Amino acid sequence: MTPELKDALTRSSAEVEAAMDALVPLPQSLEARVYNSMRYSLFAGGKRLRPFLVMASGDLFHVPRENSVRAAAAIEMIHTYSLIHDDLPCMDDDDLRRGKPTNHRQFDEATAVLAGDALQPKAFQTLLDPATDRDPLIRLELARTLADAAGAEGMVGGQMIDLQAETTSYGLDQITRLQNMKTGALIAWSCEAGAILGHATDTERAALRGYGLEVGLAFQIADDILDVEGSPEEMGKATAKDADAGKETFITLMGLDGARKRARELVDSAVARLDLFGQRAFLLKDVAAYVIDRRS
Amino acid sequence: MTPELKDALTRSSAEVEAAMDALVPLPQSLEARVYNSMRYSLFAGGKRLRPFLVMASGDLFHVPRENSVRAAAAIEMIHTYSLIHDDLPCMDDDDLRRGKPTNHRQFDEATAVLAGDALQPKAFQTLLDPATDRDPLIRLELARTLADAAGAEGMVGGQMIDLQAETTSYGLDQITRLQNMKTGALIAWSCEAGAILGHATDTERAALRGYGLEVGLAFQIADDILDVEGSPEEMGKATAKDADAGKETFITLMGLDGARKRARELVDSAVARLDLFGQRAFLLKDVAAYVIDRRS
Repeated sequence: MTPELKDALTRSSAEVEAAMDALVPLPQSLEARVYNSMRYSLFAGGKRLRPFLVMASGDLFHVPRENSVRAAAAIEMIHTYSLIHDDLPCMDDDDLRRGKPTNHRQFDEATAVLAGDALQPKAFQTLLDPATDRDPLIRLELARTLADAAGAEGMVGGQMIDLQAETTSYGLDQITRLQNMKTGALIAWSCEAGAILGHATDTERAALRGYGLEVGLAFQIADDILDVEGSPEEMGKATAKDADAGKETFITLMGLDGARKRARELVDSAVARLDLFGQRAFLLKDVAAYVIDRRS
Repeated sequence: MTPELKDALTRSSAEVEAAMDALVPLPQSLEARVYNSMRYSLFAGGKRLRPFLVMASGDLFHVPRENSVRAAAAIEMIHTYSLIHDDLPCMDDDDLRRGKPTNHRQFDEATAVLAGDALQPKAFQTLLDPATDRDPLIRLELARTLADAAGAEGMVGGQMIDLQAETTSYGLDQITRLQNMKTGALIAWSCEAGAILGHATDTERAALRGYGLEVGLAFQIADDILDVEGSPEEMGKATAKDADAGKETFITLMGLDGARKRARELVDSAVARLDLFGQRAFLLKDVAAYVIDRRS
Protein backbone atom coordinates (compact mmCIF):
# COMPACT_ATOMS: atom_id res chain seq x y z
CA MET A 1 0.00 0.00 0.00
CA THR A 2 1.29 3.47 -0.85
CA PRO A 3 1.80 5.86 2.09
CA GLU A 4 -0.72 8.26 0.50
CA LEU A 5 -3.36 5.53 0.34
CA LYS A 6 -2.62 4.46 3.89
CA ASP A 7 -3.05 8.03 5.13
CA ALA A 8 -6.25 8.48 3.14
CA LEU A 9 -7.74 5.20 4.46
CA THR A 10 -6.84 6.15 8.02
CA ARG A 11 -8.39 9.57 7.59
CA SER A 12 -11.66 8.36 6.02
CA SER A 13 -11.95 5.60 8.64
CA ALA A 14 -11.64 8.12 11.44
CA GLU A 15 -14.13 10.46 9.79
CA VAL A 16 -16.75 7.79 9.15
CA GLU A 17 -16.39 6.40 12.66
CA ALA A 18 -16.93 9.84 14.16
CA ALA A 19 -19.98 10.30 11.94
CA MET A 20 -21.45 6.92 12.89
CA ASP A 21 -20.79 7.62 16.56
CA ALA A 22 -22.92 10.77 16.26
CA LEU A 23 -25.59 9.12 14.10
CA VAL A 24 -26.04 6.06 16.34
CA PRO A 25 -25.66 7.37 19.89
CA LEU A 26 -26.31 5.13 22.87
CA PRO A 27 -29.58 6.08 24.57
CA GLN A 28 -30.35 5.59 28.26
CA SER A 29 -33.70 3.94 27.51
CA LEU A 30 -34.98 0.36 27.56
CA GLU A 31 -34.07 -0.22 23.90
CA ALA A 32 -30.38 0.54 24.62
CA ARG A 33 -29.51 -3.11 23.95
CA VAL A 34 -30.24 -2.84 20.23
CA TYR A 35 -28.10 0.31 20.00
CA ASN A 36 -25.30 -1.44 21.86
CA SER A 37 -25.54 -4.27 19.37
CA MET A 38 -25.55 -1.91 16.37
CA ARG A 39 -22.57 -0.03 17.76
CA TYR A 40 -20.67 -3.24 18.58
CA SER A 41 -20.63 -4.19 14.91
CA LEU A 42 -20.33 -0.66 13.52
CA PHE A 43 -17.17 -0.14 15.55
CA ALA A 44 -15.69 -3.63 15.13
CA GLY A 45 -13.00 -2.30 12.82
CA GLY A 46 -12.49 -3.38 9.26
CA LYS A 47 -10.91 -1.69 6.30
CA ARG A 48 -13.78 0.80 5.77
CA LEU A 49 -13.27 0.32 2.05
CA ARG A 50 -16.76 1.49 1.09
CA PRO A 51 -16.58 4.73 3.09
CA PHE A 52 -13.18 5.41 1.55
CA LEU A 53 -14.61 4.90 -1.95
CA VAL A 54 -17.52 7.28 -1.27
CA MET A 55 -15.23 10.00 0.03
CA ALA A 56 -12.47 9.56 -2.55
CA SER A 57 -15.08 9.65 -5.33
CA GLY A 58 -16.63 12.72 -3.79
CA ASP A 59 -13.20 14.37 -3.58
CA LEU A 60 -12.94 14.16 -7.38
CA PHE A 61 -15.80 16.67 -7.52
CA HIS A 62 -14.77 18.69 -4.46
CA VAL A 63 -17.74 17.43 -2.45
CA PRO A 64 -17.37 18.75 1.11
CA ARG A 65 -16.27 15.85 3.31
CA GLU A 66 -18.97 16.73 5.85
CA ASN A 67 -21.46 15.72 3.14
CA SER A 68 -19.71 12.70 1.67
CA VAL A 69 -19.02 11.27 5.13
CA ARG A 70 -22.77 10.86 5.63
CA ALA A 71 -23.14 8.78 2.48
CA ALA A 72 -20.07 6.88 3.66
CA ALA A 73 -21.71 6.21 7.02
CA ALA A 74 -24.91 5.06 5.29
CA ILE A 75 -23.15 2.47 3.14
CA GLU A 76 -21.12 1.23 6.11
CA MET A 77 -24.39 0.76 8.03
CA ILE A 78 -25.82 -1.35 5.19
CA HIS A 79 -22.57 -3.31 4.90
CA THR A 80 -22.51 -3.87 8.67
CA TYR A 81 -26.12 -5.05 8.79
CA SER A 82 -25.34 -7.54 6.02
CA LEU A 83 -22.38 -8.93 7.96
CA ILE A 84 -24.46 -9.30 11.14
CA HIS A 85 -27.20 -11.23 9.32
CA ASP A 86 -24.75 -13.26 7.19
CA ASP A 87 -23.00 -14.48 10.34
CA LEU A 88 -26.24 -15.81 11.91
CA PRO A 89 -26.47 -19.55 12.64
CA CYS A 90 -29.12 -19.98 9.92
CA MET A 91 -26.81 -18.32 7.38
CA ASP A 92 -23.02 -18.78 7.48
CA ASP A 93 -22.98 -19.64 11.20
CA ASP A 94 -19.78 -17.82 12.01
CA ASP A 95 -18.49 -17.32 15.54
CA LEU A 96 -15.73 -14.87 14.72
CA ARG A 97 -15.53 -11.76 12.58
CA ARG A 98 -12.29 -9.78 12.46
CA GLY A 99 -11.05 -11.83 15.39
CA LYS A 100 -13.94 -10.88 17.66
CA PRO A 101 -17.17 -12.73 18.52
CA THR A 102 -19.83 -12.19 15.88
CA ASN A 103 -22.80 -10.06 16.90
CA HIS A 104 -25.10 -12.97 17.80
CA ARG A 105 -22.30 -14.57 19.86
CA GLN A 106 -21.65 -11.33 21.72
CA PHE A 107 -25.38 -10.58 22.24
CA ASP A 108 -27.91 -13.18 21.09
CA GLU A 109 -29.57 -14.12 17.84
CA ALA A 110 -32.72 -12.06 18.35
CA THR A 111 -30.72 -8.94 19.17
CA ALA A 112 -28.47 -9.52 16.15
CA VAL A 113 -31.48 -9.80 13.85
CA LEU A 114 -32.90 -6.57 15.28
CA ALA A 115 -29.59 -4.70 15.11
CA GLY A 116 -29.36 -5.53 11.42
CA ASP A 117 -32.99 -4.61 10.90
CA ALA A 118 -32.45 -1.22 12.55
CA LEU A 119 -29.30 -0.39 10.60
CA GLN A 120 -31.21 -0.39 7.32
CA PRO A 121 -33.64 2.46 8.11
CA LYS A 122 -30.79 4.28 9.88
CA ALA A 123 -28.89 4.32 6.58
CA PHE A 124 -31.88 5.78 4.72
CA GLN A 125 -32.55 8.25 7.52
CA THR A 126 -28.93 9.40 7.26
CA LEU A 127 -29.07 9.93 3.50
CA LEU A 128 -32.45 11.65 3.56
CA ASP A 129 -31.45 14.20 6.19
CA PRO A 130 -30.80 17.71 4.79
CA ALA A 131 -27.31 17.58 6.31
CA THR A 132 -26.31 15.11 3.57
CA ASP A 133 -27.04 17.61 0.81
CA ARG A 134 -29.22 20.68 0.77
CA ASP A 135 -30.65 19.63 -2.62
CA PRO A 136 -33.53 17.20 -2.02
CA LEU A 137 -33.09 15.69 -5.49
CA ILE A 138 -29.57 14.62 -4.57
CA ARG A 139 -30.76 13.05 -1.31
CA LEU A 140 -33.55 11.25 -3.17
CA GLU A 141 -31.18 9.90 -5.80
CA LEU A 142 -28.78 8.63 -3.13
CA ALA A 143 -31.56 6.83 -1.23
CA ARG A 144 -33.25 5.46 -4.34
CA THR A 145 -30.03 3.98 -5.71
CA LEU A 146 -29.07 2.59 -2.30
CA ALA A 147 -32.43 0.81 -2.08
CA ASP A 148 -31.73 -0.76 -5.49
CA ALA A 149 -28.24 -1.85 -4.44
CA ALA A 150 -29.23 -3.26 -1.04
CA GLY A 151 -32.40 -5.15 -1.96
CA ALA A 152 -33.39 -8.29 -3.81
CA GLU A 153 -32.11 -6.80 -7.09
CA GLY A 154 -28.71 -6.37 -5.45
CA MET A 155 -27.09 -7.52 -2.25
CA VAL A 156 -29.91 -9.61 -0.78
CA GLY A 157 -30.59 -11.31 -4.12
CA GLY A 158 -26.90 -12.16 -4.39
CA GLN A 159 -26.91 -13.63 -0.90
CA MET A 160 -29.97 -15.74 -1.81
CA ILE A 161 -28.13 -17.14 -4.85
CA ASP A 162 -25.05 -17.73 -2.72
CA LEU A 163 -27.02 -19.71 -0.13
CA GLN A 164 -28.20 -22.06 -2.87
CA ALA A 165 -24.64 -22.56 -4.11
CA GLU A 166 -24.06 -25.48 -1.77
CA THR A 167 -26.73 -27.50 -3.54
CA THR A 168 -26.58 -25.98 -7.05
CA SER A 169 -23.59 -26.04 -9.37
CA TYR A 170 -23.12 -22.60 -10.87
CA GLY A 171 -21.07 -21.68 -13.91
CA LEU A 172 -18.74 -18.70 -14.22
CA ASP A 173 -21.45 -16.37 -15.56
CA GLN A 174 -23.69 -17.23 -12.64
CA ILE A 175 -20.96 -16.81 -10.03
CA THR A 176 -20.05 -13.49 -11.60
CA ARG A 177 -23.66 -12.28 -11.50
CA LEU A 178 -23.98 -13.53 -7.90
CA GLN A 179 -20.91 -11.57 -6.82
CA ASN A 180 -21.88 -8.46 -8.79
CA MET A 181 -25.15 -8.50 -6.85
CA LYS A 182 -23.82 -9.58 -3.45
CA THR A 183 -20.67 -7.47 -3.25
CA GLY A 184 -20.47 -5.40 -6.42
CA ALA A 185 -23.72 -3.50 -5.98
CA LEU A 186 -22.68 -1.84 -2.70
CA ILE A 187 -19.16 -1.10 -3.88
CA ALA A 188 -20.46 0.37 -7.14
CA TRP A 189 -22.94 2.46 -5.15
CA SER A 190 -20.10 3.77 -2.98
CA CYS A 191 -18.32 5.13 -6.03
CA GLU A 192 -21.53 6.37 -7.64
CA ALA A 193 -22.55 8.19 -4.44
CA GLY A 194 -19.54 10.47 -4.74
CA ALA A 195 -20.56 11.21 -8.33
CA ILE A 196 -24.18 11.92 -7.33
CA LEU A 197 -23.08 14.28 -4.56
CA GLY A 198 -20.64 15.88 -7.00
CA HIS A 199 -23.21 16.61 -9.74
CA ALA A 200 -21.08 14.49 -12.06
CA THR A 201 -21.87 14.15 -15.75
CA ASP A 202 -23.47 10.88 -16.88
CA THR A 203 -20.12 9.84 -18.35
CA GLU A 204 -18.26 10.47 -15.10
CA ARG A 205 -20.91 8.70 -13.05
CA ALA A 206 -20.90 5.67 -15.37
CA ALA A 207 -17.10 5.53 -15.22
CA LEU A 208 -17.14 5.46 -11.41
CA ARG A 209 -19.92 2.91 -11.33
CA GLY A 210 -18.08 0.66 -13.80
CA TYR A 211 -14.87 1.09 -11.80
CA GLY A 212 -16.75 0.08 -8.64
CA LEU A 213 -18.27 -3.04 -10.17
CA GLU A 214 -14.91 -4.22 -11.48
CA VAL A 215 -13.12 -3.45 -8.23
CA GLY A 216 -15.91 -5.27 -6.37
CA LEU A 217 -15.50 -8.36 -8.48
CA ALA A 218 -11.72 -8.26 -8.19
CA PHE A 219 -12.14 -7.90 -4.43
CA GLN A 220 -14.32 -11.01 -4.33
CA ILE A 221 -11.90 -13.04 -6.43
CA ALA A 222 -9.10 -11.94 -4.10
CA ASP A 223 -11.27 -13.05 -1.17
CA ASP A 224 -11.63 -16.49 -2.73
CA ILE A 225 -7.86 -16.64 -3.14
CA LEU A 226 -7.27 -15.57 0.48
CA ASP A 227 -9.90 -18.08 1.59
CA VAL A 228 -7.75 -20.83 0.08
CA GLU A 229 -4.34 -19.45 0.96
CA GLY A 230 -4.86 -17.52 4.19
CA SER A 231 -4.78 -18.87 7.72
CA PRO A 232 -7.66 -18.26 10.15
CA GLU A 233 -5.30 -16.16 12.27
CA GLU A 234 -4.45 -13.92 9.34
CA MET A 235 -8.07 -13.53 8.26
CA GLY A 236 -9.63 -13.16 11.72
CA LYS A 237 -12.33 -15.65 10.72
CA ALA A 238 -12.76 -19.23 9.61
CA THR A 239 -11.22 -19.92 6.19
CA ALA A 240 -11.70 -22.44 3.37
CA LYS A 241 -15.39 -22.59 4.26
CA ASP A 242 -16.58 -22.36 0.68
CA ALA A 243 -14.31 -25.13 -0.53
CA ASP A 244 -15.27 -27.28 2.45
CA ALA A 245 -18.95 -26.74 1.66
CA GLY A 246 -18.38 -27.92 -1.91
CA LYS A 247 -19.32 -24.54 -3.36
CA GLU A 248 -18.09 -23.36 -6.73
CA THR A 249 -15.81 -20.32 -6.43
CA PHE A 250 -13.69 -18.38 -8.87
CA ILE A 251 -10.86 -20.74 -7.88
CA THR A 252 -12.73 -23.98 -8.59
CA LEU A 253 -13.94 -22.54 -11.90
CA MET A 254 -10.76 -20.80 -13.13
CA GLY A 255 -7.95 -22.31 -11.09
CA LEU A 256 -5.72 -20.26 -8.81
CA ASP A 257 -3.63 -18.82 -11.65
CA GLY A 258 -6.68 -18.11 -13.78
CA ALA A 259 -8.36 -16.32 -10.87
CA ARG A 260 -5.23 -14.23 -10.20
CA LYS A 261 -5.06 -13.28 -13.87
CA ARG A 262 -8.74 -12.34 -13.98
CA ALA A 263 -8.46 -10.20 -10.85
CA ARG A 264 -5.51 -8.37 -12.41
CA GLU A 265 -7.45 -7.78 -15.66
CA LEU A 266 -10.41 -6.40 -13.73
CA VAL A 267 -8.21 -3.99 -11.80
CA ASP A 268 -6.50 -2.84 -15.01
CA SER A 269 -9.86 -2.23 -16.63
CA ALA A 270 -11.21 -0.45 -13.54
CA VAL A 271 -8.17 1.81 -13.40
CA ALA A 272 -8.42 2.63 -17.11
CA ARG A 273 -11.97 3.87 -16.58
CA LEU A 274 -10.57 6.57 -14.31
CA ASP A 275 -8.38 8.06 -17.03
CA LEU A 276 -10.96 10.78 -17.66
CA PHE A 277 -10.21 12.15 -14.19
CA GLY A 278 -6.45 12.31 -14.82
CA GLN A 279 -4.01 12.40 -11.94
CA ARG A 280 -6.72 13.46 -9.45
CA ALA A 281 -7.95 9.86 -9.25
CA PHE A 282 -4.65 8.39 -8.05
CA LEU A 283 -6.03 7.19 -4.71
CA LEU A 284 -8.82 5.28 -6.41
CA LYS A 285 -6.23 3.73 -8.73
CA ASP A 286 -4.06 2.79 -5.77
CA VAL A 287 -6.91 1.20 -3.86
CA ALA A 288 -7.89 -0.89 -6.87
CA ALA A 289 -4.44 -2.41 -6.89
CA TYR A 290 -4.56 -2.87 -3.13
CA VAL A 291 -7.80 -4.89 -3.07
CA ILE A 292 -6.15 -7.76 -4.92
CA ASP A 293 -2.88 -7.56 -3.02
CA ARG A 294 -4.01 -6.92 0.53
CA ARG A 295 -0.94 -8.32 2.23
CA SER A 296 1.39 -5.55 1.04
CA MET B 1 -68.42 -3.64 11.19
CA THR B 2 -70.49 -1.22 9.12
CA PRO B 3 -71.21 -2.25 5.51
CA GLU B 4 -69.43 0.91 4.31
CA LEU B 5 -66.28 0.02 6.27
CA LYS B 6 -66.42 -3.56 5.05
CA ASP B 7 -66.63 -2.38 1.44
CA ALA B 8 -63.83 0.13 1.94
CA LEU B 9 -61.55 -2.48 3.56
CA THR B 10 -62.25 -4.94 0.74
CA ARG B 11 -61.51 -2.30 -1.85
CA SER B 12 -58.26 -1.06 -0.30
CA SER B 13 -57.10 -4.66 0.26
CA ALA B 14 -57.64 -5.48 -3.40
CA GLU B 15 -55.89 -2.31 -4.50
CA VAL B 16 -52.83 -2.78 -2.29
CA GLU B 17 -52.51 -6.44 -3.27
CA ALA B 18 -52.57 -5.51 -6.97
CA ALA B 19 -49.94 -2.84 -6.32
CA MET B 20 -47.69 -5.24 -4.37
CA ASP B 21 -48.10 -7.87 -7.09
CA ALA B 22 -46.74 -5.37 -9.62
CA LEU B 23 -44.02 -4.04 -7.28
CA VAL B 24 -42.69 -7.48 -6.29
CA PRO B 25 -42.95 -9.61 -9.43
CA LEU B 26 -41.53 -13.12 -9.54
CA PRO B 27 -38.36 -13.20 -11.67
CA GLN B 28 -37.11 -16.24 -13.61
CA SER B 29 -33.60 -15.89 -12.21
CA LEU B 30 -31.60 -17.71 -9.55
CA GLU B 31 -32.75 -15.36 -6.78
CA ALA B 32 -36.42 -16.29 -7.42
CA ARG B 33 -36.55 -18.03 -4.04
CA VAL B 34 -36.31 -14.80 -2.08
CA TYR B 35 -39.07 -13.24 -4.20
CA ASN B 36 -41.23 -16.33 -3.63
CA SER B 37 -40.66 -15.96 0.07
CA MET B 38 -41.45 -12.22 0.04
CA ARG B 39 -44.62 -12.86 -1.98
CA TYR B 40 -45.68 -15.76 0.25
CA SER B 41 -45.92 -13.44 3.24
CA LEU B 42 -47.11 -10.35 1.33
CA PHE B 43 -50.09 -12.34 0.04
CA ALA B 44 -50.82 -14.34 3.19
CA GLY B 45 -53.96 -12.30 3.84
CA GLY B 46 -54.58 -10.21 6.90
CA LYS B 47 -56.77 -7.24 7.54
CA ARG B 48 -54.61 -4.79 5.57
CA LEU B 49 -55.38 -2.24 8.27
CA ARG B 50 -52.34 -0.08 7.57
CA PRO B 51 -53.00 0.19 3.81
CA PHE B 52 -56.60 1.09 4.57
CA LEU B 53 -55.47 3.84 6.94
CA VAL B 54 -53.10 5.29 4.35
CA MET B 55 -55.74 5.37 1.66
CA ALA B 56 -58.61 6.56 3.85
CA SER B 57 -56.39 9.35 5.20
CA GLY B 58 -55.37 10.25 1.68
CA ASP B 59 -59.03 10.31 0.62
CA LEU B 60 -59.64 13.12 3.13
CA PHE B 61 -57.41 15.29 0.93
CA HIS B 62 -58.52 13.83 -2.41
CA VAL B 63 -55.15 12.16 -2.95
CA PRO B 64 -55.41 10.03 -6.12
CA ARG B 65 -55.64 6.38 -5.04
CA GLU B 66 -52.94 5.47 -7.57
CA ASN B 67 -50.59 7.54 -5.40
CA SER B 68 -51.80 6.58 -1.95
CA VAL B 69 -51.81 2.88 -2.84
CA ARG B 70 -48.03 3.04 -3.23
CA ALA B 71 -47.55 4.41 0.29
CA ALA B 72 -50.01 1.71 1.40
CA ALA B 73 -47.91 -0.96 -0.29
CA ALA B 74 -44.75 0.42 1.32
CA ILE B 75 -46.13 0.23 4.85
CA GLU B 76 -47.53 -3.25 4.24
CA MET B 77 -44.05 -4.34 3.11
CA ILE B 78 -42.51 -3.02 6.33
CA HIS B 79 -45.27 -4.62 8.41
CA THR B 80 -44.82 -7.93 6.57
CA TYR B 81 -41.04 -7.94 7.04
CA SER B 82 -41.57 -7.35 10.76
CA LEU B 83 -43.94 -10.32 11.00
CA ILE B 84 -41.50 -12.59 9.15
CA HIS B 85 -38.64 -11.69 11.47
CA ASP B 86 -40.81 -11.70 14.62
CA ASP B 87 -41.90 -15.27 13.86
CA LEU B 88 -38.30 -16.58 13.62
CA PRO B 89 -37.20 -19.27 16.09
CA CYS B 90 -34.83 -16.81 17.80
CA MET B 91 -37.71 -14.35 18.30
CA ASP B 92 -41.28 -15.49 18.99
CA ASP B 93 -40.72 -18.93 17.41
CA ASP B 94 -44.15 -19.20 15.82
CA ASP B 95 -45.13 -21.98 13.43
CA LEU B 96 -48.43 -20.50 12.29
CA ARG B 97 -49.49 -17.06 11.16
CA ARG B 98 -53.08 -16.50 10.01
CA GLY B 99 -53.55 -20.26 9.98
CA LYS B 100 -50.70 -20.88 7.56
CA PRO B 101 -47.08 -21.94 8.14
CA THR B 102 -44.89 -18.99 9.04
CA ASN B 103 -42.35 -17.96 6.43
CA HIS B 104 -39.40 -19.84 7.92
CA ARG B 105 -41.54 -22.98 8.24
CA GLN B 106 -42.66 -22.71 4.61
CA PHE B 107 -39.16 -21.88 3.33
CA ASP B 108 -36.27 -21.95 5.80
CA GLU B 109 -34.80 -19.56 8.34
CA ALA B 110 -32.13 -18.12 6.07
CA THR B 111 -34.64 -17.38 3.33
CA ALA B 112 -37.03 -15.83 5.84
CA VAL B 113 -34.29 -13.53 7.15
CA LEU B 114 -33.44 -12.49 3.58
CA ALA B 115 -37.08 -11.98 2.55
CA GLY B 116 -37.53 -9.60 5.47
CA ASP B 117 -34.24 -7.90 4.68
CA ALA B 118 -35.31 -7.34 1.06
CA LEU B 119 -38.76 -5.99 1.93
CA GLN B 120 -37.24 -3.01 3.73
CA PRO B 121 -35.41 -1.47 0.74
CA LYS B 122 -38.37 -2.42 -1.46
CA ALA B 123 -40.59 -0.20 0.69
CA PHE B 124 -38.18 2.75 0.36
CA GLN B 125 -37.77 2.11 -3.36
CA THR B 126 -41.54 2.22 -3.72
CA LEU B 127 -41.92 5.51 -1.87
CA LEU B 128 -39.00 7.18 -3.63
CA ASP B 129 -40.24 6.37 -7.14
CA PRO B 130 -41.76 9.37 -8.96
CA ALA B 131 -44.97 7.34 -9.41
CA THR B 132 -45.70 7.88 -5.70
CA ASP B 133 -45.82 11.66 -6.08
CA ARG B 134 -44.35 13.93 -8.70
CA ASP B 135 -43.10 16.29 -5.97
CA PRO B 136 -39.73 15.01 -4.73
CA LEU B 137 -40.20 16.79 -1.40
CA ILE B 138 -43.29 14.70 -0.73
CA ARG B 139 -41.46 11.49 -1.59
CA LEU B 140 -38.57 12.51 0.64
CA GLU B 141 -40.86 13.28 3.56
CA LEU B 142 -42.63 9.93 3.21
CA ALA B 143 -39.36 7.99 3.17
CA ARG B 144 -37.75 10.00 5.96
CA THR B 145 -40.69 9.55 8.30
CA LEU B 146 -40.98 5.84 7.43
CA ALA B 147 -37.32 5.37 8.34
CA ASP B 148 -38.02 7.00 11.71
CA ALA B 149 -41.07 4.78 12.30
CA ALA B 150 -39.44 1.50 11.26
CA GLY B 151 -36.07 1.81 12.97
CA ALA B 152 -34.64 1.66 16.46
CA GLU B 153 -36.54 4.85 17.39
CA GLY B 154 -39.76 3.08 16.44
CA MET B 155 -40.75 -0.47 15.58
CA VAL B 156 -37.40 -2.22 16.03
CA GLY B 157 -36.74 -0.42 19.31
CA GLY B 158 -40.18 -1.50 20.52
CA GLN B 159 -39.48 -5.09 19.58
CA MET B 160 -36.16 -4.91 21.47
CA ILE B 161 -37.96 -3.73 24.61
CA ASP B 162 -40.62 -6.41 24.12
CA LEU B 163 -38.00 -9.17 23.90
CA GLN B 164 -36.64 -8.13 27.28
CA ALA B 165 -40.12 -8.18 28.81
CA GLU B 166 -39.81 -11.84 29.74
CA THR B 167 -36.99 -11.06 32.14
CA THR B 168 -37.83 -7.46 33.08
CA SER B 169 -40.94 -6.29 34.85
CA TYR B 170 -42.29 -3.21 33.11
CA GLY B 171 -44.81 -0.72 34.45
CA LEU B 172 -47.73 0.76 32.55
CA ASP B 173 -45.74 3.72 31.23
CA GLN B 174 -43.07 1.41 29.90
CA ILE B 175 -45.54 -1.00 28.27
CA THR B 176 -47.30 1.98 26.71
CA ARG B 177 -44.04 3.35 25.32
CA LEU B 178 -43.08 -0.12 24.09
CA GLN B 179 -46.36 -0.50 22.20
CA ASN B 180 -46.29 3.05 20.84
CA MET B 181 -42.91 2.19 19.34
CA LYS B 182 -43.60 -1.38 18.27
CA THR B 183 -47.10 -0.99 16.82
CA GLY B 184 -48.08 2.66 17.12
CA ALA B 185 -45.27 4.08 15.02
CA LEU B 186 -46.28 2.24 11.84
CA ILE B 187 -50.00 2.86 12.35
CA ALA B 188 -49.39 6.55 13.02
CA TRP B 189 -47.20 6.72 9.92
CA SER B 190 -50.00 5.17 7.86
CA CYS B 191 -52.35 7.99 8.84
CA GLU B 192 -49.66 10.63 8.50
CA ALA B 193 -48.72 9.38 5.01
CA GLY B 194 -52.17 10.31 3.71
CA ALA B 195 -51.71 13.78 5.19
CA ILE B 196 -48.24 14.16 3.66
CA LEU B 197 -49.52 13.13 0.23
CA GLY B 198 -52.48 15.45 0.70
CA HIS B 199 -50.43 18.58 1.51
CA ALA B 200 -52.29 18.73 4.82
CA THR B 201 -51.84 21.60 7.25
CA ASP B 202 -49.71 20.95 10.32
CA THR B 203 -52.89 20.79 12.40
CA GLU B 204 -54.49 18.19 10.13
CA ARG B 205 -51.32 16.14 10.00
CA ALA B 206 -50.92 16.21 13.79
CA ALA B 207 -54.58 15.19 14.23
CA LEU B 208 -54.13 12.17 11.97
CA ARG B 209 -50.87 11.21 13.63
CA GLY B 210 -52.44 11.47 17.09
CA TYR B 211 -55.43 9.46 15.90
CA GLY B 212 -53.08 6.78 14.56
CA LEU B 213 -51.09 6.52 17.79
CA GLU B 214 -54.23 6.14 19.88
CA VAL B 215 -55.80 3.66 17.48
CA GLY B 216 -52.54 1.72 17.48
CA LEU B 217 -52.47 1.52 21.26
CA ALA B 218 -56.15 0.55 21.41
CA PHE B 219 -55.42 -2.11 18.79
CA GLN B 220 -52.63 -3.53 20.94
CA ILE B 221 -54.77 -3.57 24.09
CA ALA B 222 -57.48 -5.36 22.10
CA ASP B 223 -54.82 -7.85 20.96
CA ASP B 224 -53.90 -8.53 24.58
CA ILE B 225 -57.59 -9.10 25.35
CA LEU B 226 -58.00 -11.46 22.38
CA ASP B 227 -54.80 -13.23 23.40
CA VAL B 228 -56.43 -14.07 26.73
CA GLU B 229 -59.97 -14.70 25.47
CA GLY B 230 -59.52 -16.02 21.92
CA SER B 231 -58.92 -19.61 20.87
CA PRO B 232 -56.00 -20.55 18.61
CA GLU B 233 -58.50 -21.50 15.87
CA GLU B 234 -60.13 -18.09 15.99
CA MET B 235 -56.81 -16.24 15.98
CA GLY B 236 -55.00 -18.42 13.42
CA LYS B 237 -51.98 -18.49 15.71
CA ALA B 238 -50.90 -19.59 19.16
CA THR B 239 -52.62 -17.61 21.93
CA ALA B 240 -51.92 -16.77 25.56
CA LYS B 241 -48.21 -16.78 24.76
CA ASP B 242 -47.48 -13.55 26.63
CA ALA B 243 -49.22 -14.69 29.79
CA ASP B 244 -47.50 -18.09 29.57
CA ALA B 245 -44.16 -16.36 29.22
CA GLY B 246 -44.82 -14.36 32.37
CA LYS B 247 -44.77 -11.05 30.50
CA GLU B 248 -46.58 -7.98 31.73
CA THR B 249 -49.39 -6.92 29.42
CA PHE B 250 -52.14 -4.33 29.60
CA ILE B 251 -54.27 -7.10 31.16
CA THR B 252 -51.86 -8.00 33.93
CA LEU B 253 -51.34 -4.30 34.67
CA MET B 254 -54.92 -3.01 34.40
CA GLY B 255 -57.11 -6.09 34.64
CA LEU B 256 -59.48 -7.16 31.89
CA ASP B 257 -62.11 -4.53 32.70
CA GLY B 258 -59.52 -1.80 33.10
CA ALA B 259 -57.98 -2.71 29.75
CA ARG B 260 -61.37 -2.69 28.02
CA LYS B 261 -62.12 0.72 29.51
CA ARG B 262 -58.75 2.12 28.46
CA ALA B 263 -59.17 0.84 24.90
CA ARG B 264 -62.57 2.51 24.73
CA GLU B 265 -61.17 5.81 26.02
CA LEU B 266 -58.37 5.71 23.45
CA VAL B 267 -60.84 5.12 20.62
CA ASP B 268 -63.07 7.96 21.83
CA SER B 269 -60.10 10.29 21.98
CA ALA B 270 -58.85 9.18 18.56
CA VAL B 271 -62.26 9.73 17.01
CA ALA B 272 -62.58 13.18 18.61
CA ARG B 273 -59.34 14.21 16.91
CA LEU B 274 -61.03 13.70 13.55
CA ASP B 275 -63.75 16.26 14.27
CA LEU B 276 -61.91 18.87 12.25
CA PHE B 277 -62.56 16.76 9.14
CA GLY B 278 -66.30 16.55 9.79
CA GLN B 279 -68.40 13.80 8.27
CA ARG B 280 -65.74 13.03 5.62
CA ALA B 281 -63.76 11.07 8.20
CA PHE B 282 -66.54 8.57 8.98
CA LEU B 283 -64.59 5.54 7.74
CA LEU B 284 -61.65 6.37 9.97
CA LYS B 285 -64.07 6.75 12.88
CA ASP B 286 -65.68 3.41 12.05
CA VAL B 287 -62.36 1.59 11.83
CA ALA B 288 -61.27 2.97 15.21
CA ALA B 289 -64.33 1.36 16.78
CA TYR B 290 -63.70 -1.84 14.85
CA VAL B 291 -60.13 -2.36 16.07
CA ILE B 292 -61.30 -2.90 19.64
CA ASP B 293 -64.34 -5.00 18.68
CA ARG B 294 -62.99 -7.19 15.90
CA ARG B 295 -65.46 -10.02 16.30
CA SER B 296 -68.44 -8.00 15.11
